Amino acid sequence: MKLPLGYRYSALYAGIRKVTKADLALIVSDAPATAAAVFTTNLVQAAPVRLARNNLEASGGVVRAVLINAGNANCATRTGDKVALATTKALARELKCPASHVFPASTGVIGVEMEANKVVEAVPELVQGLDAGQFDAAADAIMTTDLVRKTASTEVEGIRIAGMTKGSGMIHPNMATTLAFVMTDAAVAAASLRVMLKRAVERSYNRLSVDGDMSTNDTLLVMANGASGKRVTQANRAMFEEALAEVCESLARQIAADGEGARKLVEIEVAGARDNETAARIARAIANSPLVKTAIAGGDPNWGRILSAAGASGAMFDPGAVDIWLQCVKVCRKGLAAQYDEESLIKALRNREIGMKFHIAGGGLGQARFWTCDLTKGYIEINGSYRT
Amino acid sequence: MKLPLGYRYSALYAGIRKVTKADLALIVSDAPATAAAVFTTNLVQAAPVRLARNNLEASGGVVRAVLINAGNANCATRTGDKVALATTKALARELKCPASHVFPASTGVIGVEMEANKVVEAVPELVQGLDAGQFDAAADAIMTTDLVRKTASTEVEGIRIAGMTKGSGMIHPNMATTLAFVMTDAAVAAASLRVMLKRAVERSYNRLSVDGDMSTNDTLLVMANGASGKRVTQANRAMFEEALAEVCESLARQIAADGEGARKLVEIEVAGARDNETAARIARAIANSPLVKTAIAGGDPNWGRILSAAGASGAMFDPGAVDIWLQCVKVCRKGLAAQYDEESLIKALRNREIGMKFHIAGGGLGQARFWTCDLTKGYIEINGSYRT
Repeated sequence: MKLPLGYRYSALYAGIRKVTKADLALIVSDAPATAAAVFTTNLVQAAPVRLARNNLEASGGVVRAVLINAGNANCATRTGDKVALATTKALARELKCPASHVFPASTGVIGVEMEANKVVEAVPELVQGLDAGQFDAAADAIMTTDLVRKTASTEVEGIRIAGMTKGSGMIHPNMATTLAFVMTDAAVAAASLRVMLKRAVERSYNRLSVDGDMSTNDTLLVMANGASGKRVTQANRAMFEEALAEVCESLARQIAADGEGARKLVEIEVAGARDNETAARIARAIANSPLVKTAIAGGDPNWGRILSAAGASGAMFDPGAVDIWLQCVKVCRKGLAAQYDEESLIKALRNREIGMKFHIAGGGLGQARFWTCDLTKGYIEINGSYRT
Repeated sequence: MKLPLGYRYSALYAGIRKVTKADLALIVSDAPATAAAVFTTNLVQAAPVRLARNNLEASGGVVRAVLINAGNANCATRTGDKVALATTKALARELKCPASHVFPASTGVIGVEMEANKVVEAVPELVQGLDAGQFDAAADAIMTTDLVRKTASTEVEGIRIAGMTKGSGMIHPNMATTLAFVMTDAAVAAASLRVMLKRAVERSYNRLSVDGDMSTNDTLLVMANGASGKRVTQANRAMFEEALAEVCESLARQIAADGEGARKLVEIEVAGARDNETAARIARAIANSPLVKTAIAGGDPNWGRILSAAGASGAMFDPGAVDIWLQCVKVCRKGLAAQYDEESLIKALRNREIGMKFHIAGGGLGQARFWTCDLTKGYIEINGSYRT
């Protein structure tokens, strides 16, 4: 992995979660970076989300450090704001930077008071541990029910972009889902970064669903510190934006593949809808249907459930014009059963990656891509016993 | 059970489903009954839904017989309309009534052609078997993944109302969900029956969710044949409407309790919302949250998930004014953790019936009641292997 220049990382176990596994992560840019972020649209917002938003506004879109903890969402807590403030201030003192240049994020259980001291006391050691090679360690520390580390990186024309993300359950589209931190060593104007991030999120995190639940802590931050000496301008902007979006897409796909209890990544492609919004609506309804997701888990080419989920989405289309493919095998032609070799399709449905196409003939030019996962007993196991 | 006068029932195995278990049911009113029905709002509608709607219109709201099959939804099938027409016509010939007086309904797998002959050939025996005492047999024959028979009845001022319903998965609120047939021996004008049915559905079937999926075949029919000699008039209308709604509520609750894989019935009460619509929106979001439903399955008083699901619903309310009760124990006070005895609450959460209250202090007068069930591994098992 070619990491962007000018960033250092650190992680340690601060005793926030019960399991002895790093639960505190730090990302520091050597120089103040321009930054943009998107946050959860849940009415219930965690204290760190509020503070991160405020800090970003107060600093005019500048971030020096990101302080992330797992094991406690610091949400719906009496002391939430105080804890977020105390911990970011402690880090700012240690780094000798303005408190508004620290960007906080938390993930974990809701409604349990978080002890600020555990973080405050760990800050000196955390800062001492900063190292450009600790990227993976930081990515590991932000995981909760994730089974695998999720990172992505790319390099274009001397500019590097790298990202880490976490997320497994409580993943819902149409918002900046889960925690994600993307770093680049290009120099990018904050306003420009905001626009590019929004578009990148629209085709990545907003096209992702694990269980249809939306978290109170979701945050996606992108930082640009200019350490490569390259600047994003009119000339290379499209190229940079595409690279940024691809890193976000890779991270989002990894979340779907590691959905709680998931054994299969499902990529849904809808085409021929009236417009892109209608296509996304259909794709989202299919992705959120427990009946579709359990059929995928069971390796059952039950296209009737796919058609029915689309029909219930509220989107307008002609059911009699719908063709559906599973693993490139046409299972539904014009809304009716197609002829296909069921046995070989059932075999193909054992793959870890499932491709689903939903085409409406003569419907229009609207299309959407969407990622989800199958729904298995593992999901129930993880979520029936997460807290107690 | 005190059944309404003037109805006879019959059921037999016609070979539509693989398991040798009655799959064809018949309900006949001795005299033509006035009738009203609500249907699925899914864009994809099964052939029997289309025909039932047409027949009801053609007959001016008169039904003599209801012909129901389980094991095949007769939806997204090449021969769907022909099959629905041929089977209802065969029954009409046998009963010597207009074909438009026969009301068809189907439930089962989507996208598999249904053989009309199996039904047509069974019709004579089905009619011969008609008997006032075969109510339960008919209720059993319409079941698919249901584990228990679902019936309800009541008697007020000499008027009897009885209903049977089926439904376990693919249950979503905000529509006429699943199959349900309600018979009364009162005489009710068709227009009046339609109005009362709509209101009854609004507080019963439209307040019910098992998995958020919406079927292509959902139908709720109410018939009034006047056999009791009693007429619903201005004077007793409120009383009759309440009785009708209570039967529908009982049937809806039974569906939630028998949700696929469910071990617990969850009753959600939202109060203090801006208006009833907002309350229903919050209740629906909680009822549809897999994280809430798995927490209930695991007996985990994880109120943070309830608050978060409500916050993601799109409804406007002040999270800091929310109190939440589980089994009458206050677990959240003003959006924060309340003091309570967790051990005894965890014990109380082992009950088969779970009560959940979500109150917004000073928010308004809007309220809603909603039924759902827990989400267990059983749901995955049933739906991962339903067809193959």
